[in-house]
Amino acid sequence: MQMIDLQAYLTKKQSMVNQWIEACFSQESRAEKITNAMQYAVSAGGKRVRPILCLAASESVGGNPSNLLPVACALELIHTYSLIHDDLPAMDDDVLRRGKATLHIEFDEATAILAGDALLTLAFQILSDPQYVTSENGQATLKVMHRVSVAAGYGGMINGQMLDMMSEGKKLNLNEIKVLHKKKTGALIEASVFSGALLGGANAKEMQALNTFASHIGLAFQVADDILNVIGDPVKMGKAVGTDIDRDKNTFPANMGIAESQVYARQLVEKALHAIESFDKKSEPLRAIARYIIERNR
Amino acid sequence: MQMIDLQAYLTKKQSMVNQWIEACFSQESRAEKITNAMQYAVSAGGKRVRPILCLAASESVGGNPSNLLPVACALELIHTYSLIHDDLPAMDDDVLRRGKATLHIEFDEATAILAGDALLTLAFQILSDPQYVTSENGQATLKVMHRVSVAAGYGGMINGQMLDMMSEGKKLNLNEIKVLHKKKTGALIEASVFSGALLGGANAKEMQALNTFASHIGLAFQVADDILNVIGDPVKMGKAVGTDIDRDKNTFPANMGIAESQVYARQLVEKALHAIESFDKKSEPLRAIARYIIERNR
Repeated sequence: MQMIDLQAYLTKKQSMVNQWIEACFSQESRAEKITNAMQYAVSAGGKRVRPILCLAASESVGGNPSNLLPVACALELIHTYSLIHDDLPAMDDDVLRRGKATLHIEFDEATAILAGDALLTLAFQILSDPQYVTSENGQATLKVMHRVSVAAGYGGMINGQMLDMMSEGKKLNLNEIKVLHKKKTGALIEASVFSGALLGGANAKEMQALNTFASHIGLAFQVADDILNVIGDPVKMGKAVGTDIDRDKNTFPANMGIAESQVYARQLVEKALHAIESFDKKSEPLRAIARYIIERNR
Repeated sequence: MQMIDLQAYLTKKQSMVNQWIEACFSQESRAEKITNAMQYAVSAGGKRVRPILCLAASESVGGNPSNLLPVACALELIHTYSLIHDDLPAMDDDVLRRGKATLHIEFDEATAILAGDALLTLAFQILSDPQYVTSENGQATLKVMHRVSVAAGYGGMINGQMLDMMSEGKKLNLNEIKVLHKKKTGALIEASVFSGALLGGANAKEMQALNTFASHIGLAFQVADDILNVIGDPVKMGKAVGTDIDRDKNTFPANMGIAESQVYARQLVEKALHAIESFDKKSEPLRAIARYIIERNR
């Protein structure tokens, strides 16, 4: 098995994503409060897991990641919007995110709601931008938009956030916790891998393998997040820990304990890697990211 | 000039739109709180101005309106999401909309934020749905999505809402008021006419005429809305009146008085009608809607 320098890979891809997102906001538009707020949120330095998964999935089937940057960045904008709205006082009421004040604290609640709305809308503006959509990739782009909107919508991510809030203080069983997190986190991660795979030119067999891969790492990502919320370092993570226990959230550690959750996360990553074991060395970054998902400390 | 029975036309089109939107929500999904909230908001019986403009614009250039229903309804979902978020306590803090309690009053604030998010996302899900997008209309659909997302986004509708809030209590001049309303209301109305025209098969000359038409009625619509907020009947309108004055909003009546605003609205509609005067009788509904925009009482 060939190993890659994951840190170098992540740094390079994060930098590509960050530069592309920065360039979305023209000098002129930066004078506006709404644009300032959007920029504040997107430039807070997240891990860029979703866009990098999109790029790595594309590479794994021979796609050129630089063609995929607009789509990858659109996924990050959707993720960022969801964080802004989840952090609002009416929802999780969080004051710290990625090491900085949350948007409604730094600006105000109305601006945070609108900046979230604007990032979601900008994602679809980018996905349909005639600068990037050609007559060759038009139909595939429409498929990506549909998959992404389903994943982000009332049957996916938004549904997961509703379930999460409604189940605070209630005891869900393991299967219900899985359903909640498959929607809240898994759906957009799966859509990210799907988008990269489709636009990278995956054949049916590769697509099936990557869907299975994505389904497992989507869940593993959330299990790891839950674990970090208990045992993580708030300085490294840039946000408070222990908040899930305080809010009596339905997490994997709360259901099965920390040690068992760690075993479960490893099993999920093993299953994910198994799904793409026939892939060649172009999938090394994707494999490395799968391992990173449970080994990260933020 | 051939006159049409506008009330019959509006009733028929409203019913088409309402049925289509209702059918978006499967029996199964209605068990969910988020879907309930979305449905509550969309079934409150708005005038459906944007989807009807889209359909009538399409008809005016020989398009078949029934092919346009998904796009028309997506526009209404975007409009509804914007109302839900504008009504939130952090923004206009309204308790009545379309004669019913606003969404955050009927449900709760978190649900209202998420239902708005979900309606916006659903609009793009519908626009990219492979059920409606064919290989023939794929490229045009992408253009519609781009135009709609730009109109709804941080340079358009969301920007208008920011400007509206930020300018409460400040005195804008007439030109600044026009810019504010062109973004807040005009952009999505223009996008609605554009979408109908493009998918209806408008040629370049027709498109230019319809763009001019839309720009004038978009502004006329907002002037009429401002007038109704002063002299309208709250029972017919299904929402409170006098709220703009209470909040010291920058409206046309506040700037130029009621009588002058009424003259201005009529002039705008005349200009709109002038732009499409060479169109044949298929544009009668569109002409009638332009007149209705300033004659309506809700």
